[in-house]
Amino acid sequence: MDHSICKEFDIISYNNGVAEHIRDAVVEENPLTIFINDQQLVTMVCSPSGLNELAVGFLLSEGLLRHASDILEISIAEDKGSIRVRTSNQLVPANRDQNHHITSGGGKSGTNFRFIEAALELPPVTSEVQFTPAHLLKMIDLLQDRSITFKRTGGVHNAALANNEDLICMFEDIGRHNAVDKVLGYAFLNQIPCNDKILILSGRIASEMLLKAARAGIPVVLSRAAPTGLTIDLARSLNITVIGFARGQRLSIYTHPERILI
Amino acid sequence: MDHSICKEFDIISYNNGVAEHIRDAVVEENPLTIFINDQQLVTMVCSPSGLNELAVGFLLSEGLLRHASDILEISIAEDKGSIRVRTSNQLVPANRDQNHHITSGGGKSGTNFRFIEAALELPPVTSEVQFTPAHLLKMIDLLQDRSITFKRTGGVHNAALANNEDLICMFEDIGRHNAVDKVLGYAFLNQIPCNDKILILSGRIASEMLLKAARAGIPVVLSRAAPTGLTIDLARSLNITVIGFARGQRLSIYTHPERILI
Repeated sequence: MDHSICKEFDIISYNNGVAEHIRDAVVEENPLTIFINDQQLVTMVCSPSGLNELAVGFLLSEGLLRHASDILEISIAEDKGSIRVRTSNQLVPANRDQNHHITSGGGKSGTNFRFIEAALELPPVTSEVQFTPAHLLKMIDLLQDRSITFKRTGGVHNAALANNEDLICMFEDIGRHNAVDKVLGYAFLNQIPCNDKILILSGRIASEMLLKAARAGIPVVLSRAAPTGLTIDLARSLNITVIGFARGQRLSIYTHPERILI
Repeated sequence: MDHSICKEFDIISYNNGVAEHIRDAVVEENPLTIFINDQQLVTMVCSPSGLNELAVGFLLSEGLLRHASDILEISIAEDKGSIRVRTSNQLVPANRDQNHHITSGGGKSGTNFRFIEAALELPPVTSEVQFTPAHLLKMIDLLQDRSITFKRTGGVHNAALANNEDLICMFEDIGRHNAVDKVLGYAFLNQIPCNDKILILSGRIASEMLLKAARAGIPVVLSRAAPTGLTIDLARSLNITVIGFARGQRLSIYTHPERILI
């Protein structure tokens, strides 16, 4: 297996009242633009390994390749940010949006460079709110206790909004982007201010989730799962506290620990 | 929580040599088209609950809503297949691809109706291959044993191709669609026939994963996690064996059990 898809960060590991600074490996999330016959096809975020296979598999899934002999050449840019595939049939999809941007796990917003540019245009989240680890762990437990569909089917993602007392709302969806959108839609429809709240996710904190929190002005994002490297980089500049691996008596603080009362 | 997002199926539950027919709840995966001011904005697959919140949250994430007072009316179609939002500002995004189709967790291929139509145009997978439960469980264990990055970071999805002896290739990616595309790209580049292989996923078997398997002619899709209802419906007509919750000595056979030697 390829270890270049991870990156190390300085984080705070909290366990049952004791906090320590450690180095921790976090998975990378990198943009990749695929060109076919010199035409830009798509940009996605991905793990930076197996890029030949990814480009070819993507072209197969899009119905743009039939036989291995269709491929004349594949070349990867030195920075691994783009890959060019030349084919014998000169096929380029007719009705494709040239600015079609997709992501690793949702596809709703533009991503990668445009995505990062959009993030840098967002104002940093301003909030004086603080939470104890005990409260965060209690909220994660509540999310899990109330996840009835997951228990029945093992098939959905959950997202919730919490204040310093309880969960305010919770939604489930087969799509993790959808679950977060439902939470933000609920807060909007009910005119609930978000700048003193916690966004809780059942799944990984990918960069798009962080951007959703930033747009809504939510200062703390909490999950039982891991953040990505891009999420940590963006959270630093967007002034969002990212907490992962919140389970039992443990949690890991990746950014802006000043909001956590240890 | 809303239980309408599940559906029951007849499946075969296998546990340590004993197989029984049971009813099991599977999470639904439904198409939803969002219209804003009578213009079609997007179609996604989602869990059919919290649709008002989903539509509003999606518009927020797309930067199309600012204030709750922007919303004049929200109406959901009786079949829950579409939702119409009327806003006071008549905002419609300028550069949007009118046929932009997205999904619950990937966004690479067209989905929903167009997606189901595309699936129905695919030929059913023809394959006489059969596997024992013991072999399938061994392959799942191998996938997990070799998932080094997941163990380090908790952050990636894995996908692999297996024959009746061993894993042939295995790839990891932060995006589960990407991991599958890498596997299919590898098989294509190495001219490995797929119609006697097993596609193994670390995550949920969503309908798009099943379609990728169908396009590559793979007869068996195996996961430690759950399939969706739409996956099961499609797998029946595409003649693909879907196996979920493969863990320890157990697995659940959702479709075409004739390929499994019990």
